[in-house]
Amino acid sequence: MQLIDGKKVAAEIKTEIAAQVTELKNSGKKIPHLAAVLVGNDGGSETYVAHKVKACQEVGFKSTLLRYPDTISETELLKTVEQLNNDSDIDGFIVQLPLPKHISEHKVLEAINPAKDVDGFHPVNVGRMITGLPAFVSATPAGIVELLQRYQIETASKHVVVVGRSNIVGRPISILLSQKAKTGDATVTVCHSRTKNIEEITKQADIIIAALGIPEFLKANMVKEGAVVIDVGTTRVASDQTKSGWKLKGDVAFDEVAPKCSFITPVPGGVGPMTIVSLLKNTLLANSKLIY
Amino acid sequence: MQLIDGKKVAAEIKTEIAAQVTELKNSGKKIPHLAAVLVGNDGGSETYVAHKVKACQEVGFKSTLLRYPDTISETELLKTVEQLNNDSDIDGFIVQLPLPKHISEHKVLEAINPAKDVDGFHPVNVGRMITGLPAFVSATPAGIVELLQRYQIETASKHVVVVGRSNIVGRPISILLSQKAKTGDATVTVCHSRTKNIEEITKQADIIIAALGIPEFLKANMVKEGAVVIDVGTTRVASDQTKSGWKLKGDVAFDEVAPKCSFITPVPGGVGPMTIVSLLKNTLLANSKLIY
Repeated sequence: MQLIDGKKVAAEIKTEIAAQVTELKNSGKKIPHLAAVLVGNDGGSETYVAHKVKACQEVGFKSTLLRYPDTISETELLKTVEQLNNDSDIDGFIVQLPLPKHISEHKVLEAINPAKDVDGFHPVNVGRMITGLPAFVSATPAGIVELLQRYQIETASKHVVVVGRSNIVGRPISILLSQKAKTGDATVTVCHSRTKNIEEITKQADIIIAALGIPEFLKANMVKEGAVVIDVGTTRVASDQTKSGWKLKGDVAFDEVAPKCSFITPVPGGVGPMTIVSLLKNTLLANSKLIY
Repeated sequence: MQLIDGKKVAAEIKTEIAAQVTELKNSGKKIPHLAAVLVGNDGGSETYVAHKVKACQEVGFKSTLLRYPDTISETELLKTVEQLNNDSDIDGFIVQLPLPKHISEHKVLEAINPAKDVDGFHPVNVGRMITGLPAFVSATPAGIVELLQRYQIETASKHVVVVGRSNIVGRPISILLSQKAKTGDATVTVCHSRTKNIEEITKQADIIIAALGIPEFLKANMVKEGAVVIDVGTTRVASDQTKSGWKLKGDVAFDEVAPKCSFITPVPGGVGPMTIVSLLKNTLLANSKLIY
């Protein structure tokens, strides 16, 4: 069993990106600039956005954090989006989700200029990705593809079972891995809460992507010997072993599943660190103007 | 075994649409107007477009056919698209594919106003469909969903195997059927040319969607007893039994597969007639302005 070390890979990629930023600087070109919009004070969102800003600093990007109280109106937020769309210094920006209930998330996401949509959530980017056109791919699926590539895990003609059908993970990764592509060409099954006898399907998988959001859902009896297991789950569960009073739990019962695997990602330190790196890569790509 | 009679269902739906058009007329509202752009003289395209125009007449829609020689430049064609986008009398329009090689299909498709994209090929419509937002769904997958509904074929918790991963059939139908929806909630596997031991997978299917484009690919030994088989294949093969010198062949070896099925679509007369009806429904929807 080999552990897929997302933390190590993410650090390597950050070093690569930092080198590219230095090159841009040295040749007098524009430095990538990421903006993040944070509405309200949700604890998780605060942490995520802080990590994103910190990652920008580490690789030498410019970053801007725009904070608004959760009383901001939809119209005001849409105005902010419009300003960011028109600000030529900003290459890409994200609006951290979730938004307060009085604001339509899809309206806000659809208002973002697709060329600056480094989260890859705009329908144009989703649609372009699916039809095989150049597009910003959202962070988690892009991070999973990157991990499979860096560990030289073959996907062509393999049976991949994706557990979970969310718009941000399960759906896009299922599409990417079944497309005609270097890390693709897999036979892909999407399972979800309405799937019957799920273990009969996961047991056939050469590669399992667990993205259901149920801690320790995937047990040893659901996994065939030698499988590759990618754990996307990050549920906060109460813990008396940490200062914060909680710890992250994946969707995989790691201790019992790991011995059966050829490769497995831990939680934390697997897919998680890759997501921020994917965002940085998208921002670099937005700055390069290669997609739009 | 019950035959799924696409021809009959399509005729029923046309009657329903015609009644809605009469209602619109009687209440002084705007009649749906579909425009079709045909470039060149490809035999297949001529036939398809002629059928679409005829169907419009049958249900009482206005229709406009714009023909151009295959020497038209990309710029000129894009100008036509722009004119149709701005013509307030036209509710929806299609650009018949394939286009001549000197014209970028995706550039033309992306130039269409998504609100008039009744073929549902614009990335915005693909992306919105995938993220569960209101969207124009392309004709063939929409027609398949309609057939399953009209024959009350349950999809929830069923295992659907889609053979083929094309942007216009395999990919979208695989997504629609696995989404949380009335005709959805299935566990879906996408197989394709790189799938190994494909019969081991198709044999598990409660519902098989054959959309590979290889005549009589799906044989009896690949289908489990009682399965539902939807045949999307429409390959023209030489025939000395028809006036035209060719006939349509599906992707299913009908004679040997049909006896094992609970339901099966014939070719012709199965999915085919449904595609034009889906286009009509999208045009009616565009006219209603309910999506955009």
